[in-house]
Amino acid sequence: MLKNVDLSKKLSKVKLKKVLDASLGEELGQIQRDCRAAGLPVIIVLEGWRHSRRSDILGGMMQYMDARGFRVYSTTKLPLEARQQPFFTSFWQQLPLPGAMSIYRHSWYHMQIAGEFLGSEVGIRPSTLEHINAFEKQLTDGHYCILKFFIHLSNKQQKANQKKAAKALGKAWHEISTIYSEEKEYSKYYKRYDEMLEATNNVNAPWHVVSGEDLQAAQLEVYQTVVRELRRALYAFKEAKAMDKPSTGKSDTAEKYDILAKVDLSKTLKKAEYRDKLEKYQSRLRILQTEAANAGLSAIIAFEGWDAAGKGGAIRRLTAAMDPLAYAVNPVSAPNDVEKAFHYLWRFWVHVPQKGEVAIFDRTWYGRVMVERVEHFTPDVDWQRAYAEINETEAQWFENKIVIAKFWLQIDKDEQERRFKLREENPAKVWKITDEDWRNRAKWPEYEVAVNEMLAKTSTSYAPWTIVEGNDKLYARIKVLKTVVEMLEKRL
Amino acid sequence: MLKNVDLSKKLSKVKLKKVLDASLGEELGQIQRDCRAAGLPVIIVLEGWRHSRRSDILGGMMQYMDARGFRVYSTTKLPLEARQQPFFTSFWQQLPLPGAMSIYRHSWYHMQIAGEFLGSEVGIRPSTLEHINAFEKQLTDGHYCILKFFIHLSNKQQKANQKKAAKALGKAWHEISTIYSEEKEYSKYYKRYDEMLEATNNVNAPWHVVSGEDLQAAQLEVYQTVVRELRRALYAFKEAKAMDKPSTGKSDTAEKYDILAKVDLSKTLKKAEYRDKLEKYQSRLRILQTEAANAGLSAIIAFEGWDAAGKGGAIRRLTAAMDPLAYAVNPVSAPNDVEKAFHYLWRFWVHVPQKGEVAIFDRTWYGRVMVERVEHFTPDVDWQRAYAEINETEAQWFENKIVIAKFWLQIDKDEQERRFKLREENPAKVWKITDEDWRNRAKWPEYEVAVNEMLAKTSTSYAPWTIVEGNDKLYARIKVLKTVVEMLEKRL
Repeated sequence: MLKNVDLSKKLSKVKLKKVLDASLGEELGQIQRDCRAAGLPVIIVLEGWRHSRRSDILGGMMQYMDARGFRVYSTTKLPLEARQQPFFTSFWQQLPLPGAMSIYRHSWYHMQIAGEFLGSEVGIRPSTLEHINAFEKQLTDGHYCILKFFIHLSNKQQKANQKKAAKALGKAWHEISTIYSEEKEYSKYYKRYDEMLEATNNVNAPWHVVSGEDLQAAQLEVYQTVVRELRRALYAFKEAKAMDKPSTGKSDTAEKYDILAKVDLSKTLKKAEYRDKLEKYQSRLRILQTEAANAGLSAIIAFEGWDAAGKGGAIRRLTAAMDPLAYAVNPVSAPNDVEKAFHYLWRFWVHVPQKGEVAIFDRTWYGRVMVERVEHFTPDVDWQRAYAEINETEAQWFENKIVIAKFWLQIDKDEQERRFKLREENPAKVWKITDEDWRNRAKWPEYEVAVNEMLAKTSTSYAPWTIVEGNDKLYARIKVLKTVVEMLEKRL
Repeated sequence: MLKNVDLSKKLSKVKLKKVLDASLGEELGQIQRDCRAAGLPVIIVLEGWRHSRRSDILGGMMQYMDARGFRVYSTTKLPLEARQQPFFTSFWQQLPLPGAMSIYRHSWYHMQIAGEFLGSEVGIRPSTLEHINAFEKQLTDGHYCILKFFIHLSNKQQKANQKKAAKALGKAWHEISTIYSEEKEYSKYYKRYDEMLEATNNVNAPWHVVSGEDLQAAQLEVYQTVVRELRRALYAFKEAKAMDKPSTGKSDTAEKYDILAKVDLSKTLKKAEYRDKLEKYQSRLRILQTEAANAGLSAIIAFEGWDAAGKGGAIRRLTAAMDPLAYAVNPVSAPNDVEKAFHYLWRFWVHVPQKGEVAIFDRTWYGRVMVERVEHFTPDVDWQRAYAEINETEAQWFENKIVIAKFWLQIDKDEQERRFKLREENPAKVWKITDEDWRNRAKWPEYEVAVNEMLAKTSTSYAPWTIVEGNDKLYARIKVLKTVVEMLEKRL
């Protein structure tokens, strides 16, 4: 994609100012306000060669925009801890709110290249271009607008700019590292940039390759493109909103899944055996947690299941064996205002574990294909797409040394009724049961369909579901503990 | 406070289990649920000697609590970047939501001692015990409950525990540093701990010093204290809520302040002079920003003023001269659900600048003593206390190498009306004016009283207010730029 870029375009400062004063400047401000009014979240990626003067390009544009509505980021400023989390963690955490803009002077592309070429020296484990495509598609499918620019430079111009920059006062203090020297290895970087641009030039987030040989010409092209592309995105955004179809909760596949019906709920454990095994696996887990932490291995332990299936009890037996400093339990319920304003996966990315830590989720991102489907909260096309999105996400986590254990706690309808009634009768437990539990219970058949499809479509080699026979609580707790222990052992 | 601790108490494992099984365990769970139901946010600080087995004390308690409702923190796990922000930044960011618990295995006390004794080796700039007291008082005044424990140990027992710990499998991986050796310098630490406990043993957040010689005895005492003190706190919390008096917006001082009336609004600047000075100060600021960043100096630039006083324009002239990567503009409007759930200062601590960066606020924490007072959103006692709280906060920021520039943009009522009407007539600017602007304008006299008192009570040597004569926009913009430039120069 770099070969045919016209590097000869030139523009004087006076001419650029004329165009900006005539209307382009005002158009930049106006389109930002239009995006804000419509609630369109915008991500602008400004990649390019080192010394392609992206700061000037950016700075020039920012003067016409309202600084209260954007934030500028760079991966070169990420602390080491953030770099050691899964590759996309900080980008998820930096997502713009509806109507706001996140602007990257160095984005995931820079982090990818830096990770590939300098890896351990800069503390970055690179991702893959496939994951980058998946990441961007998840966002554009979620109605985020992504504008990507690559500022191209000849080696000659790059060296000239570099000299000028070195002369000018002060050294840029936010450079990733002095060892990162594109100028000397221009052809190596050229090849990799070109491949990268081609592999990530998707219809939902295409690249705009701009010549940076002449600063003013580059500025004009970037600013005009921003206005044009944001107008287009706004139009599409409004169209998409208007086209939202009512949700039916119906699957898009004809296939019937029958996983839950085959679960053998007669499995039990005697009290004495339970005590022995509890002691055994908890001791083992205590040791494994330290070993995993030392090895930089993290874990995500996800719990789903019917109401009263025993999630809380299982979690307590897990955490009893763990260092309270190294785990966090994240209860997941209906999203609050802020969570609702973001992509549905945002609130889980925020809790991705640090290196060596354990994140436990009591209910999870699978709400997208269960409650959001069954209650018709989400258009069919969106929850249907979520199976793939979740698989992609879990694969990204797994590849960053995270063990992913997912539990579906299964009980039958009679057992649930028995437990609901027990809770209602016990003053110490009555707080555990609400009207909503009874309402959910009435939708058991719909949930059964949704759970079956979920188990079938999201059980992967890297993040398998473990179905836990839960009618007997003792059996269930041990199975959870044992599974976590075995998964950690396998990965260590 | 350490001298008279009875180190002889002992308890067998069997006896502890009996007490826990009989009722204490259930009481721990119940009090947590009661706090949750009432919406009381709880902070538990578990400090003590190294090797006082706080993990065991903590771990034992956590088993009776719902892990979904607490989070355990330690300052030893803070990344370097976080340690270089103002001392209390991460503690503010880790505040519990209503009904939740934040538990510290190493808190601000540990960070204080580590900062004092090891300073640059661990990258911590210590605070002062006065600031710690102010921090805790702000929280308890804001209805947070703070429970503080110090686990005391004899040097002999400490050495014995240390040996045992070293023998046991694995090394604790979360120790701050191997250079941190209390065992060898017991008396030095003893003296400092004792002073610290005495100086921070306040009625709103008293210390509970517990003997750690015998683990079970310590566990029992801590757990019983947690139940007892949380019950007390809950009672006080409910009392306080019931006693909320309606807000009157009236000052608690008889003094009249007359600062705004003395502002000379006739000051103007000619267009040509404006252009010269704009160029001059922007160039200077561009250089200063790099110098400040290199020196690790940050800045907080706060804007308040009447509607249409020109805050946006002044901010734009500032940011035009700055590296977009090194500043962020934070627009402040009515708090959202999440912000409302926290202490009113929380949402500003979240945006405290990183080392070398600039945080600009378009409207600020002073909303507490302006809109919240004038609109009667907040009980009198709360906004009246805010002057002192804000001064304390700004002092903490200032001491962490942050330049604090605060601008009040002053215009008169006629000028505001003229600008409102201009906006209404201009299709490109009509978005800037809303009905609320007119409503606020009707309360001009009440705001005038509030602003005068604010300027009088919160203009300090470390964070002075600059009143900007704003009837002439050109004059105002230059004054803002010049002030920021001079403040940076003075501090460099």
